[in-house]
Formats: sequence, C-alpha cells, structure tokens
Amino acid sequence: MNNFVFYNHTKILFGKGQISAISDELTDDSKILLLYGGGSIKRNGIYDQVTEALNGFEYYEFGGIEPNPSYEKCMKAVDLVNDNGIDFILAVGGGSVIDAAKFIAAAAVYDGEDPWDILAHNEPVEDALPLGTVLTLPATGTEMNGNAVITRAEFKEKLSFTSALVLPLFSVLDPEVIASLPKIQIANGITDAFIHVIEQYLTYPVNAKLQDRMAESILLTLIEEGPKVLQNSADYDAGANFMWCTTMALNGIIKSGVPEDWSTHQIGHELTALHGIDHAQTLAIVLPGVMKVMKESKKDKIVQYAKRIWQIENTDTNVTIEQAIAKTIAFFESLGIKTKLSDYKIPITTIEEIVERMEERGSVNIGENKLIGIDEIRKILKSRF
Amino acid sequence: MNNFVFYNHTKILFGKGQISAISDELTDDSKILLLYGGGSIKRNGIYDQVTEALNGFEYYEFGGIEPNPSYEKCMKAVDLVNDNGIDFILAVGGGSVIDAAKFIAAAAVYDGEDPWDILAHNEPVEDALPLGTVLTLPATGTEMNGNAVITRAEFKEKLSFTSALVLPLFSVLDPEVIASLPKIQIANGITDAFIHVIEQYLTYPVNAKLQDRMAESILLTLIEEGPKVLQNSADYDAGANFMWCTTMALNGIIKSGVPEDWSTHQIGHELTALHGIDHAQTLAIVLPGVMKVMKESKKDKIVQYAKRIWQIENTDTNVTIEQAIAKTIAFFESLGIKTKLSDYKIPITTIEEIVERMEERGSVNIGENKLIGIDEIRKILKSRF
Repeated sequence: MNNFVFYNHTKILFGKGQISAISDELTDDSKILLLYGGGSIKRNGIYDQVTEALNGFEYYEFGGIEPNPSYEKCMKAVDLVNDNGIDFILAVGGGSVIDAAKFIAAAAVYDGEDPWDILAHNEPVEDALPLGTVLTLPATGTEMNGNAVITRAEFKEKLSFTSALVLPLFSVLDPEVIASLPKIQIANGITDAFIHVIEQYLTYPVNAKLQDRMAESILLTLIEEGPKVLQNSADYDAGANFMWCTTMALNGIIKSGVPEDWSTHQIGHELTALHGIDHAQTLAIVLPGVMKVMKESKKDKIVQYAKRIWQIENTDTNVTIEQAIAKTIAFFESLGIKTKLSDYKIPITTIEEIVERMEERGSVNIGENKLIGIDEIRKILKSRF
Repeated sequence: MNNFVFYNHTKILFGKGQISAISDELTDDSKILLLYGGGSIKRNGIYDQVTEALNGFEYYEFGGIEPNPSYEKCMKAVDLVNDNGIDFILAVGGGSVIDAAKFIAAAAVYDGEDPWDILAHNEPVEDALPLGTVLTLPATGTEMNGNAVITRAEFKEKLSFTSALVLPLFSVLDPEVIASLPKIQIANGITDAFIHVIEQYLTYPVNAKLQDRMAESILLTLIEEGPKVLQNSADYDAGANFMWCTTMALNGIIKSGVPEDWSTHQIGHELTALHGIDHAQTLAIVLPGVMKVMKESKKDKIVQYAKRIWQIENTDTNVTIEQAIAKTIAFFESLGIKTKLSDYKIPITTIEEIVERMEERGSVNIGENKLIGIDEIRKILKSRF
C-alpha cells in the first residue's frame, strides 16, 4: 500500500427532509449567495424548500449556471459576491453548480491578477469563501471533495483545480431529488460515478485489499441499483444507494494508498470542450479504448475486475480482458449511453485535433504509469470509431 | 436506507515515516501533553521518533496510562494539564491511551462538578482541548472517532462517552509499529475490529447496499490479512491492510444509514469490569451467544453474512445460521482467542451478577431492536459456558 493523507471534513446530511437542516449549519449573520442553474429547482420544489430554510438569513440569488460551467458566468457571480460583501456560498444543483461555487469561492478572494490562472497555470488557492451544497443530481461527487472543473468558452478550454479550501462545509443529499430527474441525467450520473471508481481502481495492484474491495463495492452497487433508478426514479431506496455511491466514489476514501489513472477524464474533457458531448458520455466513449490500449500495464487489475465485478473467469487472460471490456461497454449501453465516437457523429479529424491540444498543453504521458503518450491517445481514440 | 449525518474531520497520515509529519500539524506556540502508556514506546523506537518530531515545541510528558484506562489516572493528567496551561494533547499509544486522552481533553475544561458525570450521567461535553494521536496498536478505531471508554476501579465501572469535540485533529497510522507488537495484541486487534463491523452490520436489512458491501469488505480483508500479520508482524503490507481495516471499522462510514447493535460490547464491558478479561476477548465470548439467542431477528443478515463472508449456502436457514456461528467462532479461535467463559475460568455466578448490574444501570432492552432484555442477556451468557 502507498503512503497517503486522508482528510475530508464535509458534513453529510443524508436523507428525506434534510434540506430544512441547512439553517442549523449556517451562521446567523452570514451574507449568503444562493447559486443555482437553469431553474429546474424552481419546478421540482427544491428552490422552495431551500428558501424556506433560508428564511431570516440575508441572501442573494444568482441563477443560470450552465452545464460545464463557464469562467465568464462565474466571474459575474464573483462581482455580485464582492459588490455585496457576501461571505458564504450555498450551491443548489448538480456538479456544474457546485463546481462553479468552488471557483467563485476561490476567485472572490483571489489575490493574483486573474483567477483564471488557478485553472490555467495551477496557481495555488490561498484562501476561499466557505461553501455548502444541496445536491440535486448525483453524479460527480463534487459535494464531498475539493475538485472543480471550469470551462472557458472563448478558448474552448475545460480545466480543473483542486483545493482543500473549497471542500464544502456541508452537503445535503436528499435522494428524493432524483424522482424529478430526466433519464439521461440519471444514466450520466451512474456512468460518471462508475468511471470515477475505475480511474482509482483499474491501475496496478499495490496490495491495498480494503481499498480494492471498497471500490468494487461501489461498482457492484451501481450495477445492481443503477438500472432500478433508471427504471423508476421514484424508487427511494435505489435512489439512496445510487446517491451514496456517487459521493463515496470520489470523496478520497477509495483513492487512499493506491495509484490513480484519470487518463479517461483527461481525454474525455477534450471531447466536451470541442464537441459539447456530456461529460459522462465522453468517459463511456474513452474508457473502453484506455482498457484496450493499456491492457498490458493494467492486466492484473482488469483480471481482478473481470472476476469480482463480472464473474468472468477464463484461463486465457486476453479473452478475460476482452470480455471485461465488452461487459463494461454493454453496461453503459444498457443505461442508454452510446460508447462510440461515431454514435455522436464526431469526425475522424477530431483525433489529431485532440492530440495536438493535449501535446501543446503538456497533457501527455498520463495515466498511473505515465505511459499514455501521443501514440496511445491516438490509438485510444481510433479504437472508439 | 435510514437518514444519517456523517461528519469526520480527523486527518489521517498513513504510512512509513509519517510520525515526523506531526510537527506540521501542531501550532508553534502550543503547550503539548505527550501522553503514553506503560513505556513500550520507549523500547520500540516510537518515543524517539515522536520526541524528535516535537523538537522545538514545549511539551510535558505523562506516562503510565493502563489498559482499560482509569478515571483516577486520567484525573492526575488533568491536574498536570491545568497546572501548566497545556492546550493540546498528543496521545501516543493504543486505544487505552487515546481514550484516556479524549477524557482528559474533555475533563480539563469541564464546567460541572465532577467530570465523571460525563460518563456516569451522560453530561454533555461542551468543550474540549484539541488532540492528535500516534497509533501504536491497531484495534479500537478510536484514532478516527469521538468515542472513549473509561474505567473507574473503585466502582468496578467501565463506561463510555461520545463527542465530536474529542475527535482527533490528526492521527498518524504507521504500520511499522505493528512489527513490535505481541501476538496477543494483534489477535485482539483483529477480533476487536471484526466485531466492531459486526455490531454495525449484523442487525436487520434496510436496503443499504453500499454500507453492507463496505462492512463485508472489512470483514473479508481482516479474514484474509489478519492471519498473515499474526504469522509475521513485520509483513508491512498485511499490517497496513489490517491497520486501515481497524480504522475504517469504526470511523462512521459503515454505520451511516443502518441500524446498530452494540449489545456484544455492552455485555462484554461487564466481563472486563468484573474479571479483567481483555476487551476483544470479551467480545469473542459474547458475540456467538448474541448470534444464537437473537437469530430470529437477525436472520436475514446472518444469512447474508454466511453467504458473502463464509460462502455458506444451505437451503435450511437454521443450518446456515449454525454454520455461520461456527465459522465465526473458528475464526477467533484460529487467532488464538478463546471464546468460552469457561476458558477464562469465570464462575457461573457471574451471569446473575452481570444481569443485576445491567438491570440496575438500565442497560437492558439493548440491541438494534431493543429486544435484548434480562432473559436474553442471561441466555446469551449461559450459552457461552
């Protein structure tokens, strides 16, 4: 097992009716920014529950955070924060709204020239406003980690940063929010969480037995409960299991002491930036290519994954790996997630464009062994047409 | 799944050489109490590593915390704390030293008449000194929770309290400490962690799929790695897996959203208080009795446990339960832990003494369903002679 530091102070308030508890988590004299997205929370009743809990607090609203939240929009919220002395951000939404909240929290008190440098040049976050979240779409795990991904439309760039300073103080996870979600968002959420686990699991063995089994626990639960939620989004227990899986997939527990990959995400981000494909869909496209092209270095873990997740036991390792990839693809497709670039009508010229962008940015030699270079990225993408 | 709140801010520093990192976690002008036990840390090099890390800090030493730490000894440390304006407690030891540190941290700033009331009358902890830990004996999980158990010799009482205010700020988990442990302490640690999981798992199903699988992950890893550590305590990887299991067994993750039992602990504490039997040994004695006597209300989970942990699949539920109990006993015995009261030469009169004490204290109607009353406690203990 590798050495590790685990630290996660987000307080999780999980279950029916927990939105009302946020008033106990806020400081009486806070000036709060209530941040949300396209307004679905006004249709499904969450907005009403939140504003009822905020009754008596001083708060300002900023709506309209878009999927793949933009730097440009976030900076407008930063102006609102600074013009009004806002000192707490309450993000009510999915991954996009919460990620935006994290960037706004850091940008509002950023000491340098342009907060974009936090993303583009890895400038360290030295300070940030405190934030809390009400999660309305289980998927990214952002409600219990310090990561955020922000897009800058003018540069077609989608970049991320991580800081313990933007870890939410609290997050409300009420599975009842799932009932009003469109099927595609549920399918995306299941896929996203599944591949988050894969990025921290399908690498090489370091004899971290508990972490492996915990990662497998999440995968097995997503496979068992995901389809139930998709079938009936009002199934509270299935939704609760799905929701807790998405949070546990990326809160630091399963990555403690093990190698991490993240090449599927890095390549996938390019597909979103260039073609606007949903984040989870890009992952479902890229992952099978990563498994195929990197099968030599991932062999031991793919065999373990094949056996423990898909009950595949074949004496021929190559056959086992092929079957594991096929099962993985079939799972995403069963959720309604297409897994080939051609399914999204992406032109073959995209490959060279992505390779060039990643090379320019120095995003090569990625993956747990830094073995994924230009050639491998090219092969991974080619294998997905 | 039940509603839950999960909140755990302890920073875990895990791995070889992490003791030196404690200097980064302490405030420069802190006055520190270095708390330890019988002095084994002076023989195995841990004391030297800790004092080297404390070089430049102002610290006071208090050694001699005994197994089943006593109120009397803790109160002497409280005097040292208050006489010297100590404002941070660094516990270097196993569960006993860390539990003592928690009680000292709360008692030193206790506002009421006698800090014993925190234990005897559940007086709330309103404030506590901050504390950190260096774990030298993986077992109780106290390094990442807010629980402590303290014994008062004069009353033959062993009582517990829980407060988020005594959650350690940081805990160093260096698996190298395991190499110098006596076999019995390792066996006790494996047993203790195993039964901590059982208390949060072997209840009744609430469709909490991920929590169940995570609990099972810990049990399977303890079964796989525990014997390796016992065989060769210098096996770093096996020790690391064992150590991380003991922490994860009781840090709040697996209990989130599920019922809890704890009757084995409550009955076991009486055996320690009256006869001085090691904590883990009392649990190994009592648990099979709880499984047997409460098999009707625990049936569904015992069958799941039998299948997923011991690969027992029998069409007759009663046979499955009998086999699961037998496997559980065999596991403890394989570690060298005796599981019958008669093995410890405990007289049969103990049963009525325990029943009386628990009745007096109101510790009846215990367990996840509050179904364990006087008769059940009597039956549980009788079944273990």
